[in-house]
Amino acid sequence: NEYQPGHSVDCAIFGYQDQELKILLMKMNFGEFYTLPGGFIKIDEHIDAAAQRVLYDRTGLKDLFLEQFYTFGAKERPTLWDIKNEKGEPLFQQVSEVNSKFAKWLENRFITTGYFAFVDIEKAELTPDMTSDSCHWVNVDHLPELLLDHSFIVQKCLEQIRIQLNYLPISKSLLPEAFTMQDVQKLYEAILGIKLVRSNFQRKFLKLDILIRLEKKMTGASNKAPYLYMFDEEKYNALLQKGIGLF
Amino acid sequence: NEYQPGHSVDCAIFGYQDQELKILLMKMNFGEFYTLPGGFIKIDEHIDAAAQRVLYDRTGLKDLFLEQFYTFGAKERPTLWDIKNEKGEPLFQQVSEVNSKFAKWLENRFITTGYFAFVDIEKAELTPDMTSDSCHWVNVDHLPELLLDHSFIVQKCLEQIRIQLNYLPISKSLLPEAFTMQDVQKLYEAILGIKLVRSNFQRKFLKLDILIRLEKKMTGASNKAPYLYMFDEEKYNALLQKGIGLF
Repeated sequence: NEYQPGHSVDCAIFGYQDQELKILLMKMNFGEFYTLPGGFIKIDEHIDAAAQRVLYDRTGLKDLFLEQFYTFGAKERPTLWDIKNEKGEPLFQQVSEVNSKFAKWLENRFITTGYFAFVDIEKAELTPDMTSDSCHWVNVDHLPELLLDHSFIVQKCLEQIRIQLNYLPISKSLLPEAFTMQDVQKLYEAILGIKLVRSNFQRKFLKLDILIRLEKKMTGASNKAPYLYMFDEEKYNALLQKGIGLF
Repeated sequence: NEYQPGHSVDCAIFGYQDQELKILLMKMNFGEFYTLPGGFIKIDEHIDAAAQRVLYDRTGLKDLFLEQFYTFGAKERPTLWDIKNEKGEPLFQQVSEVNSKFAKWLENRFITTGYFAFVDIEKAELTPDMTSDSCHWVNVDHLPELLLDHSFIVQKCLEQIRIQLNYLPISKSLLPEAFTMQDVQKLYEAILGIKLVRSNFQRKFLKLDILIRLEKKMTGASNKAPYLYMFDEEKYNALLQKGIGLF
């Protein structure tokens, strides 16, 4: 009885690359299945710590700022037993033959708590665990078929991030150290899934007063070169504390 | 095995009365213990439905807009077995003698999912269940000692509501149909736990453009009578969808 019965954690890890918002998926080593990195909670483990451990075990990522975003507890949530192989048989039949107690445990109704984090894709070194063939960064707008209700979990997470974007400055971990206003706008557009009016966006974002303006970015047409910016660490953190909204 | 093992729900129900933010507490029928209305999840029940059912069973309140705000999963969370009577004995020892299986089940490590809602105190008819002496509306700034980690749960909930206040217009359910700008400001101050500058608050709040201005409120000094307002249903709901922040 090492694990908390009927409860799991799932991690939605986002990165930003080639002006696309991407999410980290595991390709399972059976069939063509993709899944969020997730797993179980030890009986004597904080669920937040479980999320960190599971993410590390499954992907090699550690010390991320994982934030809880929702707990999924529909009675209809599928379990691993609902996964069928190409013959239409439950894939966990095989597991059942090897470890019937564990397989039985997996038949129970599961509630899962979702966590998300942003990472710098360039710096993220991935080491998939034994249950997976590989880890992939996939554009959130073009997700493959995901196991269980993981597509729903991703959509709910994006919804929460879009709300957060409205009251917090976006995580620095998604932008390079120096960036143009266009880079910021593209990032916001990728997350929100909509186009933003450039002049409005620039005015509102600059008004937050969390950026330091650097020299112009050198391009061919030097008179039209855009400014480079970086975050003012102190002001950025103060705004993180305070939020963007009414007060 | 009717209930999901190791998982509960707890409800933080807020109301606003006499310019104070209040929360609904149950006074247990053993000792001087106060608690949030909470309970267990049936094996075949959506956790959101469990929160509605538990709240109804324990307080008589139904059809509230209950919103999930956090799942508490510290391994150190106290259980009902940690409650001691005046002799220092576990209070659940007695339960154990009556129903040892249920008592044993309660010894397990529990994770709880918190839900909150706002209600109109004047309209809320309360019917406490058998485990409680009575239901009470208590000022959030003057909470009595709460069972288990319920004080922590209330604080975390207030934190989340303060964030929401920053990107959503506050729930109409907390204000009377017609109100003055001072009423709105007092409500915001009660939730945020800080004083706000009147001119700033009024300007920012009116700028949201979700109010309809009615005639002046008649007072003795009629030239200083404040305007009454009500929410513009359509604009209020549109803003609820959109949020207050950057975009």
